[in-house]
Amino acid sequence: MRRTLKAAILGATGLVGIEYVRMLADHPYIKPTYLAGKGSVGKPYGEIVRWQTVGNVPKEVANQEVKPTDPKLMDDVDIIFSPLPQGAAGPVEEQFAKLGFNVISNSPDHRFDMDVPMIIPEVNPHTVTLIDEQRKRRDWKGFIVTTPLCTAQGAAIPLTPIYQNFKMSGVMITTMQSLSGAGYPGIASLDIVDNALPLGDGYDAKTVKEITRILSEVKRNVQEPGVNEITLDATTHRIATIHGHYEVAYVTFKEDTDVRKVMESMESFKGEPQDLKLPTAPEKPIIVTTQDARPQVFFDRWAGNPPGMSVVVGRLKQVNPRTIRFVSLIHNTVRGAAGGGVLTAELLVEKGYIDKR
Amino acid sequence: MRRTLKAAILGATGLVGIEYVRMLADHPYIKPTYLAGKGSVGKPYGEIVRWQTVGNVPKEVANQEVKPTDPKLMDDVDIIFSPLPQGAAGPVEEQFAKLGFNVISNSPDHRFDMDVPMIIPEVNPHTVTLIDEQRKRRDWKGFIVTTPLCTAQGAAIPLTPIYQNFKMSGVMITTMQSLSGAGYPGIASLDIVDNALPLGDGYDAKTVKEITRILSEVKRNVQEPGVNEITLDATTHRIATIHGHYEVAYVTFKEDTDVRKVMESMESFKGEPQDLKLPTAPEKPIIVTTQDARPQVFFDRWAGNPPGMSVVVGRLKQVNPRTIRFVSLIHNTVRGAAGGGVLTAELLVEKGYIDKR
Amino acid sequence: MRRTLKAAILGATGLVGIEYVRMLADHPYIKPTYLAGKGSVGKPYGEIVRWQTVGNVPKEVANQEVKPTDPKLMDDVDIIFSPLPQGAAGPVEEQFAKLGFNVISNSPDHRFDMDVPMIIPEVNPHTVTLIDEQRKRRDWKGFIVTTPLCTAQGAAIPLTPIYQNFKMSGVMITTMQSLSGAGYPGIASLDIVDNALPLGDGYDAKTVKEITRILSEVKRNVQEPGVNEITLDATTHRIATIHGHYEVAYVTFKEDTDVRKVMESMESFKGEPQDLKLPTAPEKPIIVTTQDARPQVFFDRWAGNPPGMSVVVGRLKQVNPRTIRFVSLIHNTVRGAAGGGVLTAELLVEKGYIDKR
Amino acid sequence: MRRTLKAAILGATGLVGIEYVRMLADHPYIKPTYLAGKGSVGKPYGEIVRWQTVGNVPKEVANQEVKPTDPKLMDDVDIIFSPLPQGAAGPVEEQFAKLGFNVISNSPDHRFDMDVPMIIPEVNPHTVTLIDEQRKRRDWKGFIVTTPLCTAQGAAIPLTPIYQNFKMSGVMITTMQSLSGAGYPGIASLDIVDNALPLGDGYDAKTVKEITRILSEVKRNVQEPGVNEITLDATTHRIATIHGHYEVAYVTFKEDTDVRKVMESMESFKGEPQDLKLPTAPEKPIIVTTQDARPQVFFDRWAGNPPGMSVVVGRLKQVNPRTIRFVSLIHNTVRGAAGGGVLTAELLVEKGYIDKR
Repeated sequence: MRRTLKAAILGATGLVGIEYVRMLADHPYIKPTYLAGKGSVGKPYGEIVRWQTVGNVPKEVANQEVKPTDPKLMDDVDIIFSPLPQGAAGPVEEQFAKLGFNVISNSPDHRFDMDVPMIIPEVNPHTVTLIDEQRKRRDWKGFIVTTPLCTAQGAAIPLTPIYQNFKMSGVMITTMQSLSGAGYPGIASLDIVDNALPLGDGYDAKTVKEITRILSEVKRNVQEPGVNEITLDATTHRIATIHGHYEVAYVTFKEDTDVRKVMESMESFKGEPQDLKLPTAPEKPIIVTTQDARPQVFFDRWAGNPPGMSVVVGRLKQVNPRTIRFVSLIHNTVRGAAGGGVLTAELLVEKGYIDKR
Repeated sequence: MRRTLKAAILGATGLVGIEYVRMLADHPYIKPTYLAGKGSVGKPYGEIVRWQTVGNVPKEVANQEVKPTDPKLMDDVDIIFSPLPQGAAGPVEEQFAKLGFNVISNSPDHRFDMDVPMIIPEVNPHTVTLIDEQRKRRDWKGFIVTTPLCTAQGAAIPLTPIYQNFKMSGVMITTMQSLSGAGYPGIASLDIVDNALPLGDGYDAKTVKEITRILSEVKRNVQEPGVNEITLDATTHRIATIHGHYEVAYVTFKEDTDVRKVMESMESFKGEPQDLKLPTAPEKPIIVTTQDARPQVFFDRWAGNPPGMSVVVGRLKQVNPRTIRFVSLIHNTVRGAAGGGVLTAELLVEKGYIDKR
Repeated sequence: MRRTLKAAILGATGLVGIEYVRMLADHPYIKPTYLAGKGSVGKPYGEIVRWQTVGNVPKEVANQEVKPTDPKLMDDVDIIFSPLPQGAAGPVEEQFAKLGFNVISNSPDHRFDMDVPMIIPEVNPHTVTLIDEQRKRRDWKGFIVTTPLCTAQGAAIPLTPIYQNFKMSGVMITTMQSLSGAGYPGIASLDIVDNALPLGDGYDAKTVKEITRILSEVKRNVQEPGVNEITLDATTHRIATIHGHYEVAYVTFKEDTDVRKVMESMESFKGEPQDLKLPTAPEKPIIVTTQDARPQVFFDRWAGNPPGMSVVVGRLKQVNPRTIRFVSLIHNTVRGAAGGGVLTAELLVEKGYIDKR
Repeated sequence: MRRTLKAAILGATGLVGIEYVRMLADHPYIKPTYLAGKGSVGKPYGEIVRWQTVGNVPKEVANQEVKPTDPKLMDDVDIIFSPLPQGAAGPVEEQFAKLGFNVISNSPDHRFDMDVPMIIPEVNPHTVTLIDEQRKRRDWKGFIVTTPLCTAQGAAIPLTPIYQNFKMSGVMITTMQSLSGAGYPGIASLDIVDNALPLGDGYDAKTVKEITRILSEVKRNVQEPGVNEITLDATTHRIATIHGHYEVAYVTFKEDTDVRKVMESMESFKGEPQDLKLPTAPEKPIIVTTQDARPQVFFDRWAGNPPGMSVVVGRLKQVNPRTIRFVSLIHNTVRGAAGGGVLTAELLVEKGYIDKR
């Protein structure tokens, strides 16, 4: 039996924070013991949180007082989950890591530091070893580990088995992303009622940049060509959905490629979390549906077990001998953020990175 | 000065019907004199219509009584606009044409009859000559002319100058279509609130089929390859917008192709309606925007003059030397249906097909 | 330990049907063993159901085959839950009751039969004795029991303690109801995007009629005046929410009435289900919030335990000495339909009406 | 023929600003010559404005450069329309009035200054004489005149003929307001998708306060009782509509009151703008509909001519001999703001307050 680990959640009242709270309230060995907030310090969590997810605030946390983001008060904390917003996250996370805390971040601020892992546990688990380098270089006892942008994960997870097994030449992605991906208050209502909101060049570019890095770290059995030889592009949008990023991908190949084999590669895709039977690992990271007109955001975003941890892929089609199409749906604040963070924590525990504290 | 033509609008209380009424109320020589309906015969049009468009019901039609779809009552009608739903339209339109009426249909029922033109006036105006064949073969005095599916037009119009001037090898389209495209009652609210609704294989296929036919009829200066050599695919959806189909297109080429030249070809694109200065012809069939994150459905769907007659193209990008991306926005019930029908009528008048009655 | 009861759910794939399935999958002694549908007979429930609620289809029912609504196949069924639509429900329910089945209906068809109870278990549980009369009059072994209109319940539950303890003279209700209350396909998307849909005179009237009957059956300690002396009115609407009916009530009294005492009467309100500790009874049928701008549909509709079984009341205000205001929020397909049905079943079991079969 | 007046619009790119621009572009004698903005100074208006209304940016203003809010540049301006946000508006407006400018404000900042009129031209036009007092007291050549809160106008306009002709004792209002009423960015999308947002005590109170003042200034033929003897209350909300505030009102009377007479009083209601034939005056300030389930926000908010200047009243009902119900719909940024401002300007011109500059 594993000893119980105490977790602090920074930004615990935010849209990703609440998913951490929800998932950890049921976790076998990680407990949400320190809920850090900003405007609401001192108030009972259950009273002030905007619980923009399923169910109700778990009883065991409803009466916890929201606390300040202050390392001095967090002596007994084993893991820090940081879904802080861009800009705010960077310095706070660094401060914590320097003081010896183990930080798992969903924020972009440190994602592209050369010694910081950006992990999807099924895809590039071996990159955790960057932690050793990070500690050495920075002379830290703690560390920072990040998870990628939710939008990038929605494409990168299904692309991983394709990249491992087939010779891709291009990937062209169109996204319909949910409002929760922009945080709260985030997207103005007048931008989204009776509208689709293009996210523009900047967002398109960062999506491509992150998918590129993730694929470049996929190791096992990778077929040619290298990621740099693959044309990657994304056209990103938000639409009036609350949770769940839906993405359409057209994939081209250097040689004739059978969509049924691509489908099989997705269905049989597994990674270390499944091998290690991590508690938050879904049985299937990718669930493939052959139903017409599925997946749908409302009906499929909570797919898998734990709910929301599986990416659902559908509408697979052989467009021509060297082109296929699929769509994917990822729960952006679960698999794409908090759930990915918890799964990463479990992987780090298993690999001996957390118990050291 | 042209003589005034009298127009009947079948399904005049429907979502396309109201756009016909709105546009013809201001038309220089086509007047909406016969508003045909079904459930509301005998009632004043202005009282029973669901006016799901801009402005208010024009005064000159508000008090017109809705009339039955009965050729015997329509002796003095010069043009029949038929935006009747699939299935219902076919036999009605045939009956009218047989009796000598000139029918312009937005319905799919006769689109693929081999002697029926399917017209976008800027794209394939020469196909009106199929009318002569149609009359001969069927021994009709009247005729049926159709306009293509709104979704197909949203892609086909911007693809026309590309197809004319460059050597395309592939087009991969992802759509976010509005609710009005499905008519009323159409899409159930529970399918669209907090959801994106995939339209499925059937809708994907018909979109591709219609774009293929339209491009195959583009005649002037066309570069190789032929349409059959181009890979065309579409992934179609509805989202919670009222009017305006937004489409993302990735286009691949057989040779290096400069996105700036593609853009120029779109901006300078004109057709017979512009040459003939038809009253409903927009100055520019395609308006290109270089603003980031535009076009947007809410803000750009009424682009052009008459409003809603221009397709707006934006987010043009050189993805790699042989791949470009653009998005397009078409007002589905205006340019994609009623406006296309009125423009087609004007073309037919100009070419002498209407005055014969 | 109670013996396990087998339940059939008619219309099990509908919006109320799915809540029955969800709630019974976890029920201590009522099991969903017979899922009846119409278009989908023979198919696995989990594959064809539109699961428009929280979580995923429970494992124990996902593979159950949908079965026909045929009494001959339902020999071992103890309870029939019937959320069939108006019109369809009436004859089916009668047929089942005649054959000896115990039918709990959420449909309006038999609500106003003079020998059919219309039950909110906390409000008028004593009306179950109408069953005895029903059986005698109709010579049935089985019976039909109904639950009231969800909209009526959203007002009637909070009005019950007010009616019991104070002398009301008027109640004026304005509703903002959710889409699921109209079933599927129900409300057309074009009626609700960028709109509020008035439900009109008919719906207003039936809401008032049902509240009137419910209050007239509230027995304990009732203050004067009688229901017929109270002016009751409702102005009903749907808005673009998926679940949860939100209602604003202005209540006038015959004498000065302190809003704080009204609030206390709501907070302390309990009924037989709480006394009997029925498994689906929430601890508090009415949860009163004093937070400004609460309850809100998205955040409060799942209030209580089981989730969705408590009505949330807020914005209580002393308008003048004889007028108060409150708003209420009820989960229409849970407390207002399926949850009310399950709670009624538990009450009937406790009172010995179900075990007889 | 009246001389042309030059108007400056402060906050010309805002949600009320655009309606001023739209309405003045067509105005017979007030021209929008100075479009003041903040973030966008120096850019062409048509390029940077979010045109969240009907039609497209009028040609005559599309190329105007956005200018700073600087009195020194506005020498030839005759009228200043100020839809600036609360807090920002106050000092700016005061500065302009002190310098001799005629300011018509839609902002709340000066609404309750004792010498500042708060005008609905059909309701309390005589209060313009407060300007004289204002100028004297403050030693200003210019002045500030305000228009009331859109929500208050939606109730106050239909209540005016009732107050004039019948003995009201109470008014209880429930609102469903549109998003544009909160400005941009305003309401967060995550507060409104699948939700109704209560506006809370503060907004309820200010709505009541403004209705009270407006009614207290209704002069002609007013029946007893005085406003202070009438119980007024409002329960306010936003829902996911873009424009148009929908309000349900229950009105009680001191004596039996026939709803048909109330309806007649609304239908025949006219004021000075109609008598003076002001260009922006609708023929009927109140349009009464007897259609069931009307008015509806989407279909009726542009009622009247100019569009959006008439309040639509419907669902009139005799609840009991001394209680009636009606609903009203007001276009909040037109009649409730910009249109009200333009109509007020016309009234001031007619009364000689503007030409003085």
